[in-house]
Amino acid sequence: MTISHYHFQTASHIVSGAHSLELLGEKLELLGLSKLRSIFILTQPSIVSLGYADQIKTELAKKGIASEISTEIKPEPTEENIEDVFQTFLKGEHEAIIGIGGGSVLDAAKILAVLKTNDQPISDLVGTNLVKKRGVPTILIPTTSGTGSEVTPNAIVTFPEKELKIGMVSPYLLPDLVILDPALTLKLPKAITAATGMDAFTHALESYISNKANPFSDMFALESMRLISGSIQEAYHHGDNMTAREDMLVGAMYGGMALTSAGTAAVHAMAYPLGGKYKISHGVANSMLLPHVTAFNADHIKDRLEDIARVIGIEEKGSKHMLAEQVIRQIEEWTADLHIPQQLKAFGVSKEDVPALAEAASEVKRLMDNNPKPMYVSDIEQVYMKLLHV
Amino acid sequence: MTISHYHFQTASHIVSGAHSLELLGEKLELLGLSKLRSIFILTQPSIVSLGYADQIKTELAKKGIASEISTEIKPEPTEENIEDVFQTFLKGEHEAIIGIGGGSVLDAAKILAVLKTNDQPISDLVGTNLVKKRGVPTILIPTTSGTGSEVTPNAIVTFPEKELKIGMVSPYLLPDLVILDPALTLKLPKAITAATGMDAFTHALESYISNKANPFSDMFALESMRLISGSIQEAYHHGDNMTAREDMLVGAMYGGMALTSAGTAAVHAMAYPLGGKYKISHGVANSMLLPHVTAFNADHIKDRLEDIARVIGIEEKGSKHMLAEQVIRQIEEWTADLHIPQQLKAFGVSKEDVPALAEAASEVKRLMDNNPKPMYVSDIEQVYMKLLHV
Repeated sequence: MTISHYHFQTASHIVSGAHSLELLGEKLELLGLSKLRSIFILTQPSIVSLGYADQIKTELAKKGIASEISTEIKPEPTEENIEDVFQTFLKGEHEAIIGIGGGSVLDAAKILAVLKTNDQPISDLVGTNLVKKRGVPTILIPTTSGTGSEVTPNAIVTFPEKELKIGMVSPYLLPDLVILDPALTLKLPKAITAATGMDAFTHALESYISNKANPFSDMFALESMRLISGSIQEAYHHGDNMTAREDMLVGAMYGGMALTSAGTAAVHAMAYPLGGKYKISHGVANSMLLPHVTAFNADHIKDRLEDIARVIGIEEKGSKHMLAEQVIRQIEEWTADLHIPQQLKAFGVSKEDVPALAEAASEVKRLMDNNPKPMYVSDIEQVYMKLLHV
Repeated sequence: MTISHYHFQTASHIVSGAHSLELLGEKLELLGLSKLRSIFILTQPSIVSLGYADQIKTELAKKGIASEISTEIKPEPTEENIEDVFQTFLKGEHEAIIGIGGGSVLDAAKILAVLKTNDQPISDLVGTNLVKKRGVPTILIPTTSGTGSEVTPNAIVTFPEKELKIGMVSPYLLPDLVILDPALTLKLPKAITAATGMDAFTHALESYISNKANPFSDMFALESMRLISGSIQEAYHHGDNMTAREDMLVGAMYGGMALTSAGTAAVHAMAYPLGGKYKISHGVANSMLLPHVTAFNADHIKDRLEDIARVIGIEEKGSKHMLAEQVIRQIEEWTADLHIPQQLKAFGVSKEDVPALAEAASEVKRLMDNNPKPMYVSDIEQVYMKLLHV
């Protein structure tokens, strides 16, 4: 008897809408968290500057809950950085944690919550399902429309000495509450709107063509692509458009739900080595690779590209082959319009680096195995080469 | 500043697919529940006869977990019935609960779990957000494709002396794990497949036209209608079609997610009095009412009916008015094909009963307020009258 099963995991309570941050106190009450003594607010300097961290502090104070704001988490945080912040967290004797910021802050908040209860170092907890106990209550408030970290059971830790990023994966990393407030994203800088938005679109597209795609992930992936395709240019050019920002935020969250169920594929595998050695941000690397990897996969995913064309608003005319081309052209148009780099040269990558990059990407087997068309090292090299062609 | 927010709540961990029940042990391990001493298995006689309760007992025994099977919960259980079963549950000193069965069993399992931790009688906990503490770990396994109870924070209790059904609503009623195994539904009797399936479709349709419809509920509602419309007749006529059964089960769950976020409307409000006094099952009452209430609402929901027409496979031809008519005709065709009664006479309802029924339905303000077109008592009477026309 074959078992063909698929899984869906998410945060059990999500609130969305403009200014929904104002519901924080009410939601703490509803979830039995309003009697806590003190909550740690993990964030980043830009969010403090915009006043959102203080807004949370005020909401908590109204409930008689003390809080401490920390901005010590660095982008793509290292093991050491997270352990350091954990000491601050411990010193404050906080009973819960609120993460408000981009993917790095949210990931770190998830990790701190389980460090508190599991009495083990980070290095023992990275990997799949090694966390033994539920963490302290966690509330996640994304301020970018990108990683979908607020609804995934994953958190990434950088180990610089090993030149490695390793994921911590556990159902215990899912938060108790997610607040999606598009008002918090209105002032997101253009370049970050672009890179994180295309990152989210990549999550959805790769989940939809993944070998592990299933009825759960398909629904989220299609809706994610529909929302993001309809709003990414508006959110970039007119950042104060609340509707566009809301569609981006919900779309990015659905991307996170899709990838949790189906996984990502070759684009993500190929983006990792570009991030590691050349410090190309995850979103930029994904955006650069997406059209070329999609072109490589096209003949294996004709029906899926047809669905994608439909949800991103490309009229069905002509053959399926033409639809595939139109999807690819649309992605290229977006990245051009959003001023995302299209060439690896700008990052100091040259042709001589390609074999090592391809080798490294092919080692990310967990993701390469999800790719609908097998990708040999020579195929990977050819795709990287397209990004070096002037 | 206006707050326009919307909410999504669900079980945080869901596994689906044929024979996914076999993953029970593995999932208990993943969720930290494999060291429990004893689990209460709440079910119904038909499920015991089919061997599924014993299958669970065996899976638990493999992990060294004792268990006790109870079939004492009655359909649409009363306060007294649930309190009685709670005594059995307490006597066994069980640390968790598995509910496997139809909506009544799942609702009762959710209630038992919070009774154990909240030290208050049921009558104190019914209503909205009156449960104070998280319950014991709960696993829900639906064997009908209907209520979506496995993913809703609601449970219905019957109070016969008051001729009332009251909902217990709390985030603490959401289970820790849901298993959607379509193999468990292959032997579902035709009449139950029909009534529960149309009930699920009604959840989705009413959520989609509800005044509280929002981006979360819309996605689930449309996908629910797409799945159910594509499989309900096949599931009815060829009950052993695993794909159709799987689509029904996932579709019904999405219906539960949609209604949790958007609420249902006039159909449900009008079904309640038919259940109370005339013992017409919830699914049958909903199915009978759905086309007539939809016809009443039609001029207020033209765009929404167009979307519904699209997902249930009705080709767009002609005007929006014609599309609405086609949706209504499609629902009537289903109920005829599925041999669902279309007339209230068969249940002993006569024209003289209509004013009292309409009065009672208009009192269900929580649901009537969600209806897109205001419904006066005279409107409600007219709709009931359509079900008395020979």
